Amino acid sequence: MRRQNPHELVERVVAGDRTALARLLSVVEQGGPPSALASSLVWPQGGQAYSVGITGAPGAGKSTLTDQLICLVRKSGDEIAVLAIDPSSPYTGGAILGDRVRMSDHFTDVGVFIRSMATRGHLGGLALAAPGAQRVLDAAGFPWIVIETVGVGQVEVEIAGAADTTVVVVNPGWGDAVQANKAGLMEIADIFVINKSDRAGAAEAQRDLEGMLDLSDIGHDEWRPPVVRASAATGTGIDDVWRAITDHRARITNDKSLKVRRGKRLRVELQVTMARLLEARVMERGHGAGFDRILDDVIARRTDPIAAAERLVAEMVTT
Amino acid sequence: MRRQNPHELVERVVAGDRTALARLLSVVEQGGPPSALASSLVWPQGGQAYSVGITGAPGAGKSTLTDQLICLVRKSGDEIAVLAIDPSSPYTGGAILGDRVRMSDHFTDVGVFIRSMATRGHLGGLALAAPGAQRVLDAAGFPWIVIETVGVGQVEVEIAGAADTTVVVVNPGWGDAVQANKAGLMEIADIFVINKSDRAGAAEAQRDLEGMLDLSDIGHDEWRPPVVRASAATGTGIDDVWRAITDHRARITNDKSLKVRRGKRLRVELQVTMARLLEARVMERGHGAGFDRILDDVIARRTDPIAAAERLVAEMVTT
Repeated sequence: MRRQNPHELVERVVAGDRTALARLLSVVEQGGPPSALASSLVWPQGGQAYSVGITGAPGAGKSTLTDQLICLVRKSGDEIAVLAIDPSSPYTGGAILGDRVRMSDHFTDVGVFIRSMATRGHLGGLALAAPGAQRVLDAAGFPWIVIETVGVGQVEVEIAGAADTTVVVVNPGWGDAVQANKAGLMEIADIFVINKSDRAGAAEAQRDLEGMLDLSDIGHDEWRPPVVRASAATGTGIDDVWRAITDHRARITNDKSLKVRRGKRLRVELQVTMARLLEARVMERGHGAGFDRILDDVIARRTDPIAAAERLVAEMVTT
Repeated sequence: MRRQNPHELVERVVAGDRTALARLLSVVEQGGPPSALASSLVWPQGGQAYSVGITGAPGAGKSTLTDQLICLVRKSGDEIAVLAIDPSSPYTGGAILGDRVRMSDHFTDVGVFIRSMATRGHLGGLALAAPGAQRVLDAAGFPWIVIETVGVGQVEVEIAGAADTTVVVVNPGWGDAVQANKAGLMEIADIFVINKSDRAGAAEAQRDLEGMLDLSDIGHDEWRPPVVRASAATGTGIDDVWRAITDHRARITNDKSLKVRRGKRLRVELQVTMARLLEARVMERGHGAGFDRILDDVIARRTDPIAAAERLVAEMVTT
């Protein structure tokens, strides 16, 4: 396989080439100048995709729900891409765990594209790699992009919350609603799905969530997150989940809040990108003699880490 | 309760005042100038504590294990502090979930100090709040600091891996070892604990882990992570876990790698702190007219986010 330049790759991706898509995603994930070039090339091509974040605790049934939503979307004829950022996700394991998964039913369908992203890598890497990958999928022409993340972990919750519509998946059982609140999931939810609702406790879980919504001032753009009961394993309630997603989409499209949301997201992403570029400069300076001298002062407890960092930053930034 | 200045708070913390300790931790967690001042005041007071990271999937039994280790340490007469950074942790819920927890046995023991930290907050906040809190506990004189984090989520895994000794807790059952590998836990483990070893599959889990260790080049400082079987709920194997911790401590103290580790950690922390300070400057500039003009260009797809960020950064950094 010969190496290809990003221009050629992007052209092929826009033309619908899935092999090129997989390779372009790798380029974008790896960061650095090739990633920056690829991003600048895909950016003018995008803007049509709608993103749905799906998050929840490990074992809540996010992948099974995603699987069912894929089936539903495919019946309507639309193509759909899935970005799975979840170490507990069965398809993250690729070859090892692939056979456990119904998702494999879609492997022969070119209208479905599934990509897993590792959660490893250095601090904050994921926070930029995810929107970068999303933009590539957008440029590839997918009208629907599902971003599945585990709802535990600061970065992962933020990524799910940065979708156009965010679905939080919980299970019946005492405490799950409380857990969702603690993990910050209440704040990002546009829709709650109580999955495994055929089990005992679904009504109580619904009551708990509705009660927490009553108490909170949550109501994004005057939208109160609906609580939908479903059982992804049996297929029950999937239509209701999908209706909630399309209702939310219609609502935020009509009242223009989708545009506001996306603008805010771009502002944050621009800031995070700036911070990352600055971080790269820090890493460059974080190995010089000047840095090492100050580090030695910190180790010897002559100065503290924050004061030392302030001094180093003051030297590198224009006022 | 009257407000107190950080100088006075730190003095009281060093003198052993637990109320002052709780308040100083809040100051440090909130960030900003009071946090920076507090950090600079506690830094010269610390350096004696030894930190143990405990991590693993939600439900692996980390809190129960921590609870048992507290009992063991207290029998030796040493004081111990716990920093719980885990949305699934029972004591994170405080009043709501407190009664479920044996940890409450320690509430009347002044030699034990337990603090939960929320995983919310903006990007990367936790990555600096955790070492900041750790330094306060160090200055308060605790010889042992346990940092319990959920082993899912990029930042959380990194925090656990930044302890002097890191314990990764898994459970019997097919796939848990594989999961640990996927989540990046293999790389940070100094010790593996197979908790709930009274259940079926403990021997297989041990074999899986040993097999993965054989295949990998993991052996931090030529230390091969031991795999210890335990059952925290019944108290079985806790002595073995503790022995593994003290063995690891003795080893890295004797071969000087503890010093190297801590130096590396400080380097990274200094770099992350610099990046955060720069981020704060970005936020300041991220609301001006110049920024908004460029953001509009991005929204209109005249320029892409990365190119825009590069332009903005070039303007603010000295070459």
